[in-house]
Amino acid sequence: MIIPLPCPFDKVFPSQLKKDELFFMQLAYNQAIDAWKEDEVPIGAIIEFKGEVIAADHNRTVQTKDPTAHAEMLVITEAAKAIGDWRLNEARLFVTKEPCPMCSGASIMARLGHVFYATKDPKMGCLGGAFSLQGLPKLNHMLTATGGVYEAECTALLQAFFKGKRIELPM
Amino acid sequence: MIIPLPCPFDKVFPSQLKKDELFFMQLAYNQAIDAWKEDEVPIGAIIEFKGEVIAADHNRTVQTKDPTAHAEMLVITEAAKAIGDWRLNEARLFVTKEPCPMCSGASIMARLGHVFYATKDPKMGCLGGAFSLQGLPKLNHMLTATGGVYEAECTALLQAFFKGKRIELPM
Repeated sequence: MIIPLPCPFDKVFPSQLKKDELFFMQLAYNQAIDAWKEDEVPIGAIIEFKGEVIAADHNRTVQTKDPTAHAEMLVITEAAKAIGDWRLNEARLFVTKEPCPMCSGASIMARLGHVFYATKDPKMGCLGGAFSLQGLPKLNHMLTATGGVYEAECTALLQAFFKGKRIELPM
Repeated sequence: MIIPLPCPFDKVFPSQLKKDELFFMQLAYNQAIDAWKEDEVPIGAIIEFKGEVIAADHNRTVQTKDPTAHAEMLVITEAAKAIGDWRLNEARLFVTKEPCPMCSGASIMARLGHVFYATKDPKMGCLGGAFSLQGLPKLNHMLTATGGVYEAECTALLQAFFKGKRIELPM
């Protein structure tokens, strides 16, 4: 029987007194830890709207068997439901890894105000890494993005997960 | 009171004897007509797997208030559920308009075997129109795509919808 390695990282508890980019990214990081505990790739996401968290989730592709169940997709759906509008112009997405082609595209289609991400992804990231989808010339929404927020911690989490190290128990 | 223009297009009923690209795209076209009747942008999608339709749906962004509820996303989720695997390598997507950045990315992430689309979209399409996401050099899945299947009919449907023509009734 193969069981996942217990997550060796602890959640962080940022002060509520300073709700800056680091604060929201740390909440996304906590979501990523929850993902690991469910044996999902540890990527977490938060959507902030007018200073409040209106959506929080993490990757669920394994448990749902749904390739679209990335953290970013889930919080975009959740945020639109929370405010009753599919246009999220005033909302900001915080995600622990640079969004893939699908999630970068979703951020544009949802008209998100800004995307902050931690770990850069030169292979699949489409908000600056492998490509900049937000730079396509004829989009009807101008998305901006910032990488590198809480990067070391989110990257360490991902790397530890992929180093893999499942424990094989005799069964 | 403003009501949508009744859809002036009829569904088509292709022969079951020849299940070629045109057959499946015509089923996607019928889904697009259903979308119009629900006052959604008339784009429909089908996923075919081993000769059978395992998913069929159309845009639902207005009724769900969810910016991710594009036809392609819904059928990808539905198809993965139908076969119990998020990897759709043996499946083919048929959609009446070239996928947007999000849906092009989702087609890659879901490892779809091939995407056929009807109407090309030089503004937002990311499987050849505005960009070719499938051509990013470091993807771990090779997606192929073909545009122009049943193009005139699917384009006419979209154009008629956007010309707009809502009927204003005295209320």
